[in-house]
Amino acid sequence: MTTTDALHPFDAAIALTAEADGRFHGKTAPAYANMVGPFGGITSATLLRAIEQHPERLGDPLSLTVNFAGPIADGDFEIAVRPARTNRTTQHWVIELSQGGVVTTTATAVFGIRRDTWADGEATMPVVPAPEDVERSGFPDFISWAGNYEMRFTEGAIPEKEGENPDSTTTMWVRDTPARPLDFASLTSLCDVFYPRVFLRMGTYLPAGTVSLTIYFHADAAELAAQGTDPLLGTASSARFSRGYFDQSAQLWSRTGTLLATTHQIVYFKG
Amino acid sequence: MTTTDALHPFDAAIALTAEADGRFHGKTAPAYANMVGPFGGITSATLLRAIEQHPERLGDPLSLTVNFAGPIADGDFEIAVRPARTNRTTQHWVIELSQGGVVTTTATAVFGIRRDTWADGEATMPVVPAPEDVERSGFPDFISWAGNYEMRFTEGAIPEKEGENPDSTTTMWVRDTPARPLDFASLTSLCDVFYPRVFLRMGTYLPAGTVSLTIYFHADAAELAAQGTDPLLGTASSARFSRGYFDQSAQLWSRTGTLLATTHQIVYFKG
Repeated sequence: MTTTDALHPFDAAIALTAEADGRFHGKTAPAYANMVGPFGGITSATLLRAIEQHPERLGDPLSLTVNFAGPIADGDFEIAVRPARTNRTTQHWVIELSQGGVVTTTATAVFGIRRDTWADGEATMPVVPAPEDVERSGFPDFISWAGNYEMRFTEGAIPEKEGENPDSTTTMWVRDTPARPLDFASLTSLCDVFYPRVFLRMGTYLPAGTVSLTIYFHADAAELAAQGTDPLLGTASSARFSRGYFDQSAQLWSRTGTLLATTHQIVYFKG
Repeated sequence: MTTTDALHPFDAAIALTAEADGRFHGKTAPAYANMVGPFGGITSATLLRAIEQHPERLGDPLSLTVNFAGPIADGDFEIAVRPARTNRTTQHWVIELSQGGVVTTTATAVFGIRRDTWADGEATMPVVPAPEDVERSGFPDFISWAGNYEMRFTEGAIPEKEGENPDSTTTMWVRDTPARPLDFASLTSLCDVFYPRVFLRMGTYLPAGTVSLTIYFHADAAELAAQGTDPLLGTASSARFSRGYFDQSAQLWSRTGTLLATTHQIVYFKG
């Protein structure tokens, strides 16, 4: 598609063509491939973008839940987007991604119009060195999508040698590379950049994949605009690993201490 | 309905009549009423129960997300349940509750068959007195649903006098009253028993309601059976309150330190 040649790789990856009746057509992007199918973050961002492009959309995202029902094959896909209910200040969406009529991904989202209220940030941001003082590292080269993110781990980098860890916490500075101003779609994708916590705990790779992902958007449009291309601080950890599944919760912060998003997922693993 | 007279009030409240094509019919229960419409926990449990009663259901719940799109009026409702995709060991569900053709609630769920793997509980249970050593208290009488729960707060009881709190944490022992053996449906409802954290922070009641609720079921059927009617320890807190919304995360533990569920929600407030 020559029209996307000038786009940032992220924008090219989530580009959609609107069709009739709230349907959109898209195509997987090799640059955001994971081990099997696309990176879950890019799929989630694509679903959010479909709502953003829907003519009836009201306000900005408040929450998004994406369920990874089956693998997405390389190639074309279709997204069906339906506003299940529109209220005065909130709107509820039901979304399905399918290929050849087979559902691969289901999702729901809430959008809304924010207004000023009492406010407070109660969670505390981890105390870490500035991103300029942390060496850039990343994932092995065979994980394509990770090449689109500049990662600077301050804790819990991806394990390079075998050996169990007592703690599942990873903390890192992260942003798109090449740099790209933050928006709701890229924040969505960033919520899924934390590799499966079981790798860190067990000190080794094993088959694992997100089953369901939820994001709460705390930032409003003005806070995202203020973030620009600056790195975000992300920290993730798990509460329990049991019988094939574990949870994983993360916070994403601006350098100045604004909690932009909290995100949770349940992950399948075989180990 | 005379057939439900002998049931526990919880079972009576979530009772459904199966109709054709994955549709179920139910009725709101005054015993589980909230300020406006039913308690979100009982609605969530009812949606889970609809899947449990679906003839194609595979395995046990792994995750559930419920979006409260609009108020549910006292009276009859209909639930449409659809298995969007069934894999070998997991199954993805899309659910909608409606009244007179108007959607009030959307949901997705993942069910699955668990198998033995490496396991570890990483989160730590709060250190509190035994439930027998904590006085029973509760909510004001005008909150009907709370009368079905025996609550023993060790931290962050519902505020009785005006005054801000610096911390949004509530920790309590909680179980159904009359006592009822724990199952996935009652665990679902228990995930929503934490009153809005903004009441605690601001030290006063104000209009507030859950917008979207997600539950990760860590317990398997055997762990639930082992719990029986013993109280669960629940602890909940928020990360950020901003421009009309806040998040709220909670853990539910067995007395013996098994993390049964983790749950997250985003809540609307006006203050």
